[in-house]
Amino acid sequence: MSSPVLGVVAVGNALVDVLAQTSEDFILQQNAQHGMEKGAMTLIDEPRALALYEQMGPGVESSGGSAGNTMAGFASFGGKGAFIGKVANDDLGKIFQHDLRSLGIEFTTQPLIIGAKTGRCLILVTPDAQRTMNTYLGASVELGADDIDEELIASAAITYLEGYLFDRDQAKQAFIRAAELAHKNNRRVSLTLSDPFCVDRHRSDFLNLVENHVDILFANEEELKSLFMQNDFENALNAVSKNVEIAAITRSEKGAVILANGQRTSIEAAPVTQVVDTTGAGDQFAAGFLYGFTEGKDIETCGKLGALAAAEVIQHIGPRPASVFAELIGKAA
Amino acid sequence: MSSPVLGVVAVGNALVDVLAQTSEDFILQQNAQHGMEKGAMTLIDEPRALALYEQMGPGVESSGGSAGNTMAGFASFGGKGAFIGKVANDDLGKIFQHDLRSLGIEFTTQPLIIGAKTGRCLILVTPDAQRTMNTYLGASVELGADDIDEELIASAAITYLEGYLFDRDQAKQAFIRAAELAHKNNRRVSLTLSDPFCVDRHRSDFLNLVENHVDILFANEEELKSLFMQNDFENALNAVSKNVEIAAITRSEKGAVILANGQRTSIEAAPVTQVVDTTGAGDQFAAGFLYGFTEGKDIETCGKLGALAAAEVIQHIGPRPASVFAELIGKAA
Repeated sequence: MSSPVLGVVAVGNALVDVLAQTSEDFILQQNAQHGMEKGAMTLIDEPRALALYEQMGPGVESSGGSAGNTMAGFASFGGKGAFIGKVANDDLGKIFQHDLRSLGIEFTTQPLIIGAKTGRCLILVTPDAQRTMNTYLGASVELGADDIDEELIASAAITYLEGYLFDRDQAKQAFIRAAELAHKNNRRVSLTLSDPFCVDRHRSDFLNLVENHVDILFANEEELKSLFMQNDFENALNAVSKNVEIAAITRSEKGAVILANGQRTSIEAAPVTQVVDTTGAGDQFAAGFLYGFTEGKDIETCGKLGALAAAEVIQHIGPRPASVFAELIGKAA
Repeated sequence: MSSPVLGVVAVGNALVDVLAQTSEDFILQQNAQHGMEKGAMTLIDEPRALALYEQMGPGVESSGGSAGNTMAGFASFGGKGAFIGKVANDDLGKIFQHDLRSLGIEFTTQPLIIGAKTGRCLILVTPDAQRTMNTYLGASVELGADDIDEELIASAAITYLEGYLFDRDQAKQAFIRAAELAHKNNRRVSLTLSDPFCVDRHRSDFLNLVENHVDILFANEEELKSLFMQNDFENALNAVSKNVEIAAITRSEKGAVILANGQRTSIEAAPVTQVVDTTGAGDQFAAGFLYGFTEGKDIETCGKLGALAAAEVIQHIGPRPASVFAELIGKAA
């Protein structure tokens, strides 16, 4: 087996974020009429996406998607990576492609020619700086097993899977194929659980994946508890430790706990002057950890790199780096 | 003649801004190879726009265009307005439409079905916070005289024309038609000169317009001097005073000078804590002035509203309001 050329190949939803300011009243009204949950991520279909967009104020568009955000951070550290995900053949799809490629991330998945539009996440920001997300997955869930290129998977040390992709059956198959191909080629498989609601929707599938396919699991405390249906954090940690080689569990201002081959390492949260927008904290923790790991750093350094990246991203608006993450590497030594 | 239903109908380039961080070196290299001028606006064609975009880092997309920005500000004050401009039938065109309409601005110009894409302005931001703009006008200059609806022009107290539209002949004809229809219907015509290079490219056409069609002229000091080829500001003021009813000349931190029917009014710049991004200062000065004017305020109040709006927009990134301009009205009393 040749040594990997890439650090990470990520499989995720290809989404463009559309961010607009809104009032508390608007969220309340949308909650009453459409079940929109303040601060949470709600999946919406195309008619609903168009109708909601009609009612939203002026937007700012930028590339997003959990795994896409992680790859942007990974590249900002200096890592070499690739992304597998489905856009449509439209302007938003071209924007998503451009933004990843401009960071040096390989992205060659064929766009969807007929059918759904490029997926988008309509993000409503209330005056308290909270974000309420409404995701129209669009073309991104048309990703199929055929889109998973064995050569690409084999070329990366780690195949990183975004839990949100589990929200559609076809994408789930692509997901499993990616994991199988990675292991067939003696590579590691990593999974991020995405949000507690997503875990709730697909608990048995996630449990199967974690037990049988995953080497490195990323989750936050809530997601981990939801997965194992445990109210107690220690019990949830105990459960996950039996299933994966490494579990990196983030706990917001309490830092992170990493279980690696039975060893427990606690990582303090990196110092933050002002929390502006917490979106992307988990995505960038994963970016830092994965960069450290693929560079052969010890677990504590990997965790520190994750904490530093998470601290950067929550101090500005947007889920991708605003500075060069490579400059953080010295601080984790 | 019935009284106008709308305050302002603007005729301008329908552009989406694409903003990306860049290095000084990149600008130097682009200057050597393509004549890109740091801090200035360069017009580019589609192949060049695609090639430059390829080389740019990740972007953030938002609606722009000088007159579009002004109308966003005008609406934020509470003014009722409309926009005439040409987008293509693509995602960026839909974004531009949505953003104006979501502010309550009437925008019914038919999109271009075949041909150019929606125009865009590729904006490179260097570490010193300067913006270097590269504009692909695209569909926006396919605006023709047929797109100028007499009923709409007649319904607004002021027809506001964006100088940048002068960069193509077909749009120039639309421009002249709008001015003629406004006067035929006993409305006022306002023009903003856009940038000194644009004035330089079309000086004789601008002079003809100012002498024969314009009632309210907006310009900054450099643009005014360029128009009349005067090195001395007072001489330029003297020249313009003979040609228009009102000239509102902005002078950055020196405030503004307004000449109205021979009367000169000086307006101080509104206080600013920190200048973050000067883009949109002129656009928003016009927004404030036009709002005051269409509400029947005296010239000094109009100027103060302009100065307050300009001060707001230079304290954040982006050329459109980040707060509600209506809250500034009390400060101009």
